[in-house]
Amino acid sequence: MSVVSKTVFSELKINSMTLPNRIVVPAMVTRLSGEDGFVNDDITNRYVRFAKGGAGLVVLEAMAVHHSKSGPLLRICDDEFVPGLRGLRDQMRDAGPGCVVPQIIHFLKISRSGWRQKVEDLSISDIDAIVDAYAAAAVRTVAAGYDGVELHMAHAYTLSSFLSRLNKRRDDYGGSLNRRLHLPVRVIQSVRREVGDEYPIGVRFDGEECIKGGYTVEEARLIALRLVQSGVDYVSVSAGGKFEDAQPREGEPPYPYTGYSGDRCMPGKTYPNGANLYIAAGIKEFLREQGHSAPVIATGKINTPDLAESILTDGNADLIGMARPILCDPDWPRKVEAGNWEKVIRCCYANVCKAKDERFQTVTCFLWPRSSTQAPESDDVVEPTWPETGAALTADGTKGRISLKWEPATDNEAVYGYDIWRAIEGGEFERIDAVPAPVTAYHDTTAIKGLRYMYRVRGYDLAGNRTQASGEVAAEIS
Amino acid sequence: MSVVSKTVFSELKINSMTLPNRIVVPAMVTRLSGEDGFVNDDITNRYVRFAKGGAGLVVLEAMAVHHSKSGPLLRICDDEFVPGLRGLRDQMRDAGPGCVVPQIIHFLKISRSGWRQKVEDLSISDIDAIVDAYAAAAVRTVAAGYDGVELHMAHAYTLSSFLSRLNKRRDDYGGSLNRRLHLPVRVIQSVRREVGDEYPIGVRFDGEECIKGGYTVEEARLIALRLVQSGVDYVSVSAGGKFEDAQPREGEPPYPYTGYSGDRCMPGKTYPNGANLYIAAGIKEFLREQGHSAPVIATGKINTPDLAESILTDGNADLIGMARPILCDPDWPRKVEAGNWEKVIRCCYANVCKAKDERFQTVTCFLWPRSSTQAPESDDVVEPTWPETGAALTADGTKGRISLKWEPATDNEAVYGYDIWRAIEGGEFERIDAVPAPVTAYHDTTAIKGLRYMYRVRGYDLAGNRTQASGEVAAEIS
Repeated sequence: MSVVSKTVFSELKINSMTLPNRIVVPAMVTRLSGEDGFVNDDITNRYVRFAKGGAGLVVLEAMAVHHSKSGPLLRICDDEFVPGLRGLRDQMRDAGPGCVVPQIIHFLKISRSGWRQKVEDLSISDIDAIVDAYAAAAVRTVAAGYDGVELHMAHAYTLSSFLSRLNKRRDDYGGSLNRRLHLPVRVIQSVRREVGDEYPIGVRFDGEECIKGGYTVEEARLIALRLVQSGVDYVSVSAGGKFEDAQPREGEPPYPYTGYSGDRCMPGKTYPNGANLYIAAGIKEFLREQGHSAPVIATGKINTPDLAESILTDGNADLIGMARPILCDPDWPRKVEAGNWEKVIRCCYANVCKAKDERFQTVTCFLWPRSSTQAPESDDVVEPTWPETGAALTADGTKGRISLKWEPATDNEAVYGYDIWRAIEGGEFERIDAVPAPVTAYHDTTAIKGLRYMYRVRGYDLAGNRTQASGEVAAEIS
Repeated sequence: MSVVSKTVFSELKINSMTLPNRIVVPAMVTRLSGEDGFVNDDITNRYVRFAKGGAGLVVLEAMAVHHSKSGPLLRICDDEFVPGLRGLRDQMRDAGPGCVVPQIIHFLKISRSGWRQKVEDLSISDIDAIVDAYAAAAVRTVAAGYDGVELHMAHAYTLSSFLSRLNKRRDDYGGSLNRRLHLPVRVIQSVRREVGDEYPIGVRFDGEECIKGGYTVEEARLIALRLVQSGVDYVSVSAGGKFEDAQPREGEPPYPYTGYSGDRCMPGKTYPNGANLYIAAGIKEFLREQGHSAPVIATGKINTPDLAESILTDGNADLIGMARPILCDPDWPRKVEAGNWEKVIRCCYANVCKAKDERFQTVTCFLWPRSSTQAPESDDVVEPTWPETGAALTADGTKGRISLKWEPATDNEAVYGYDIWRAIEGGEFERIDAVPAPVTAYHDTTAIKGLRYMYRVRGYDLAGNRTQASGEVAAEIS
């Protein structure tokens, strides 16, 4: 284990489960499932690969607690789904040491006309049915051998919509913050009753709604406290991903994540690293002030071991959620623990995965070889190399941006892509982006006149072996 | 001067002007102007009051550099507006020691149909005309005797729309960041040529667009640098306020600030204090790294002297912008400098001022006495008092919220309002809100079950003299 990642690779006990390290793969939709809701081979391959990569906790993509019609989606609304889920858990246990919890979800109805059911439309018996469905589904996660269960209270779905400041109910389930919490608290208490005191229950919820009139970390701190008081063992902090600002598409049902709040949920290239960290940090601080030790998971553009370690040692969170980086390279944990951060294929936050989800396509990574449905795997140790004449990197700043070109690297297996590194005005080089092979060009559209830029590139193969750094090239916008 | 506000009340030189303290009143629309664009008595009263209050820099509300049709709005598009503006400056000089700069603006056309002109619609000669109009307007600010000029490059207006990542032009004025900067840089250079090297030029711009696909502090740092390199003497950092997410209203032209980005521009009750501070801090850090000393103004829910002082001493900004707090009580600077923070009427971020602006009504403060168009003024020193039997504060937690009631205070002049103070679980009391007299009730809708709350209230009069704190009352949600 790398000394600098000591905390990242330390254990953490959450109720009856002990995570071998602090890396969490948060629930990510894959669109690999069928409409029948059963576990299939593609799903299994995706999650076994995550398990093999060594993350301390893998959260399975949201599965429905109820029978409502939807597109491809896992289900846990009936005992018939238990054997498939148990098989998946068994295969993940053979692949890696991490804990695994399914995320369970209830969502309201939507239609292609743009209509969507609102929390205001639900009767008390509808609400009671939601409580029962969550409890029954949680029992099935126990039966299927999972280490715990995560209740989905984030984004555009039912429990999040109750928590929302835009919940307009006028009864015990809406209005004041305490009433908005009523259903989520009932769900937790009911699940706890069914699974017993020792079974880990987590919650993923929005720490900031990121929509007009939505709540911010100020209320999220209180929400987290109340959820923990009600029996939750960990809180996983997300943001945004709401229907209210979703961009309508003709003939398609409304889809969250397509508006600004979707940008904030999965912050892309233009966002700073750790863009949502202040939310998790604010929640954790308040929980600790109030005497609660429930671990907090921070997510949102956390990629490097240094950032992950500093978040933990600064006390801003207890666990690091990494969705896109681990989609990009499931072996992130294993490689970093072995001191091979240099061999990790690094997410470039192009958010093609997000765009595919929005288009209801199988979610894959932009950096994977074309038409792959899983991340490439290789134990090769041979580094790719530049041509004998070098990478011949050139930079041109004549068109209001800086355009790079270089010669392709070669490899015994396959060149997979290139990292772009940049330094400004004599500062340190930072890796700013990546392109998939066979692309050997890059436009830096964020460069400005009046600053001197230096660039270099490094190629990498399927196992993450890197070429030497190319020669450096200087450029300015003319 | 209070020792704890030492930095807030220290001078700052910006090119040829010296601000007597670090408090800035950022440009705020008043809707007190007529459609003719001339300075009138109501405008004068508002700004003379601000000057008298003692802020180090008052920025006059945006005035148009061009003749385009609009609602009530000051204008500086012709020499005929200079005498009125000079008269306003003279009266402000008589009232207080602060510097004054007009904010000058260009905006594109909008119509009631919802149509709006975009930067993509402008010809090169349209663009040249914008450059010329800014330069001519800046010359008029010199002629009118102002200490400097502030170029409006924020929110939904022309120069901001060029800076935006949503600028879709395909020529030298759009696409890459450097090209998006082209027009703003031309404007600065042209203004600088006309006003000479020593006349202070400021810029207000968005440090984060807060819309889907918009830029964040990452690009804002570069934008600030390029603006400063081009001749700007200070940067005033705003956020959001865009057309792209404005909420349409039947029969009215689109209006920015009505969407989520408007919430982020003027963060209300639900936001943390200093909600946008990280943006100004990120920009300042980068400017200093690059060797530039141009002062940075932070804005966005900064209200207390302690917060203002810590922002300055922590180095997160050089100046504190306070719009709503100084609308609420123009005497904030004068009172705090005299050690009378306890006499300041404190903004409660109800954003009624913002709502009035959105409805094209005269912008006033929710806490002002009803139908006032200016903040009340009084030199009274007599404190209001509770009835002999006390405030009789009661709290009821039976309806999913905590409802307070108390007896009215009395005063020799008039009771103006009540501050609500709260402590959670034995923590420190914090002032959480205010209500205008004659209201003597308050609903705390953010209280949650499982926490013990303590409340007290204090009444205040027109001069900000406070009653003794009421007796304390405890409450929990049942």
